[in-house]
Amino acid sequence: MRRSQLFIKTRREAPADEEAKNAQLLIRAGFVHKEMAGVYSYLPLGLRVIDNIKQIVREEMDAIGGEEMLLSTLQHPQIWQSTDRWDDAKVDVWFKSALGEGSEVGFGWSHEEPMTRLMTQFVSSYKDLPIYAYQFQTKLRRELRSKSGLLRGREFIMKDLYSFSRDREQHDEFYATVERAYHRVYDRLGIGGITYKTFASGGPFAKFSHEFQTISDIGEDIVFLDQGKKLAINQEVLTDEALSDLGLDRQSLVEKKAVEVGNIFTFGSRYSEPLGLFYTDEKGVQQPVFAGSYGIGVSRLMGLLAELFADERGLVWPSVIAPYKVYLASLGDEAEVKAAADEAYEQLQAAGLSTLYDDRDERPGQKFADADLMGLPYRVVVSQNSLQAGGLELKKRTQTDTRTVPQDQLVQALKNSLQE
Amino acid sequence: MRRSQLFIKTRREAPADEEAKNAQLLIRAGFVHKEMAGVYSYLPLGLRVIDNIKQIVREEMDAIGGEEMLLSTLQHPQIWQSTDRWDDAKVDVWFKSALGEGSEVGFGWSHEEPMTRLMTQFVSSYKDLPIYAYQFQTKLRRELRSKSGLLRGREFIMKDLYSFSRDREQHDEFYATVERAYHRVYDRLGIGGITYKTFASGGPFAKFSHEFQTISDIGEDIVFLDQGKKLAINQEVLTDEALSDLGLDRQSLVEKKAVEVGNIFTFGSRYSEPLGLFYTDEKGVQQPVFAGSYGIGVSRLMGLLAELFADERGLVWPSVIAPYKVYLASLGDEAEVKAAADEAYEQLQAAGLSTLYDDRDERPGQKFADADLMGLPYRVVVSQNSLQAGGLELKKRTQTDTRTVPQDQLVQALKNSLQE
Repeated sequence: MRRSQLFIKTRREAPADEEAKNAQLLIRAGFVHKEMAGVYSYLPLGLRVIDNIKQIVREEMDAIGGEEMLLSTLQHPQIWQSTDRWDDAKVDVWFKSALGEGSEVGFGWSHEEPMTRLMTQFVSSYKDLPIYAYQFQTKLRRELRSKSGLLRGREFIMKDLYSFSRDREQHDEFYATVERAYHRVYDRLGIGGITYKTFASGGPFAKFSHEFQTISDIGEDIVFLDQGKKLAINQEVLTDEALSDLGLDRQSLVEKKAVEVGNIFTFGSRYSEPLGLFYTDEKGVQQPVFAGSYGIGVSRLMGLLAELFADERGLVWPSVIAPYKVYLASLGDEAEVKAAADEAYEQLQAAGLSTLYDDRDERPGQKFADADLMGLPYRVVVSQNSLQAGGLELKKRTQTDTRTVPQDQLVQALKNSLQE
Repeated sequence: MRRSQLFIKTRREAPADEEAKNAQLLIRAGFVHKEMAGVYSYLPLGLRVIDNIKQIVREEMDAIGGEEMLLSTLQHPQIWQSTDRWDDAKVDVWFKSALGEGSEVGFGWSHEEPMTRLMTQFVSSYKDLPIYAYQFQTKLRRELRSKSGLLRGREFIMKDLYSFSRDREQHDEFYATVERAYHRVYDRLGIGGITYKTFASGGPFAKFSHEFQTISDIGEDIVFLDQGKKLAINQEVLTDEALSDLGLDRQSLVEKKAVEVGNIFTFGSRYSEPLGLFYTDEKGVQQPVFAGSYGIGVSRLMGLLAELFADERGLVWPSVIAPYKVYLASLGDEAEVKAAADEAYEQLQAAGLSTLYDDRDERPGQKFADADLMGLPYRVVVSQNSLQAGGLELKKRTQTDTRTVPQDQLVQALKNSLQE
């Protein structure tokens, strides 16, 4: 993409009403636009980051048998009344609107009920189970305060997977499979080392549920880590009984701030029974389907990664989710510089190395500042100086040193570096 | 995808409360699930169709310089008040909800206002224009009656492109470019021959706006065609003056029912002025940005194509948007049949021919009925009969005759047929 054709501009200052560093950076770099507190639109570069995160999550969900679909935003009150989750006194984040003639609709803040009801169309026998279905959905939640940027929005993008199993045994096996898939997602995003499986309260069908918490000072959550065992426990379940169950020792736990980047939950027949999701087992006996749900906050991950990897000059994207791999900048308007930069752009594109080409008539200082602020993994500069030095100047966003690469070796140099 | 791993089932009967043939077929074939009137969830095969339509639209929008982004669903009242489109008396399809402390939010039924306001962040000079930005958005509209299936939903997926130009001349050029891109979209979807550019009322900034109307008896609109000129005019502008302007003769017009599959609209400074979207021209004079919008209903197209191409046995997808190219069915449980079918599945997958493999333990009649109902372009059957006849039985969904193809020629036979 040529920068001259991209409509966004970077900004020196974030808007005064934006308190969260992740949103400040993403707004300044032109990745998102703030519509109101907790509500952001995704500009072209931001949408590419979202799509890259989704693709990693999608690959890992597909690999464990997940089937992608898309439920509706509009929600019928009746199905939520049957599980007693329509009343604002029970669920306080509902957006609701009049539909007409005294009737209402809700806006999906979660999707256990519609997914469970939908499955009643397709499940009758044990042979129909298990089923693993997921979606990427824009969730809407009436949060009265929303000050953490993309970490806690009123409108946010989430991957929610639902499992429908015959019994606890079949469920537990898949639950462990999802755990492993989640760890692969966090590893691929570059936060595997600081993301802990965390024990949280479980509800009626399981002693514990599990969160995945990424250790960071920007977190709103408090967790207690056992770094040796690579496990954590959250405050609400920090009891002697829980510690004993988990084989953890209170003395060896360290208190840390953390951001929840995923959660997995066993809900058994909690929704299946009221919504009528039953199957006939091998013996001809009707049984409720045993279910679970598994969430990953896609836009929250974008916010977390933006803030976690940033430095004083701006964003620093991991290359797997960067909107483009390379920021290519031409400095000066000499014909030979433009020709070399155009050629580099074509070489990079042809090699499948996605490139944002800053071909604008703009000061070098502005181009360097933009490259740093936008945080693409590599910067390639073409100038009369670089050409005299024998080629193009290559720099990693995470390093300060630059090196000159002959034009015909640029693609190979980048490919080698990406594989390091 | 193996059918045994796909959770959906086909149905003999559509739900009693579903009146629209497109939704009846899509529900029976397991492509969508009805949540309530005018609200459908997309099951795995349906989501693949949506994604295929989106990809065709995306390619054509990118080819004319469109930049993809994603605006929010939640809408701030203030920006719609500034254009006088917040009041229910002015716009009667708003879903609105309480946010807290007496404040409200709206749910995006269209996005001219937020897109225009967003551009005030990025436009100051004539050098910043033109800008072409688009999104695929789930629109929400409070339609009191909604009985046309996916053709008119309360929740639907739309591509909306917005252009921001310096003046009418720059605008008009792009407007004509979009027209050509829209014709390419309809051609690629297989409805180019029956889709007409149609003159509709224009508003203050243009004599006419334009709709793209696909001629079909299922349409809710009435248009008047000049088949020779490949133009149409809609009822509201069928005046002597308009006919004279367009060089059309009332005698040669034919009245037809049609489905609106796209619209393009010049709105000039209608939203730019109240929302403060101005730029400084070459002479240093402040000017309002001249804008237009360009919509294509993605989920409506899915409904239209489902209904338009169907026959008495079910859906008949054009191959460019079919969820899979091939329905592969094994008949019988003999080892040699299963082995040949497994091998065919791997051959097809390796060749990039997406395949739904009906590996279920199910009657041949049911598999044939499902293949027809789901409407994939090709059916490949492996049975003892076919193996004795020398290979696999190949049939196009649109034809009744079958032919036997040796296993090692299957991929080539399909590729040849797809290129026909």
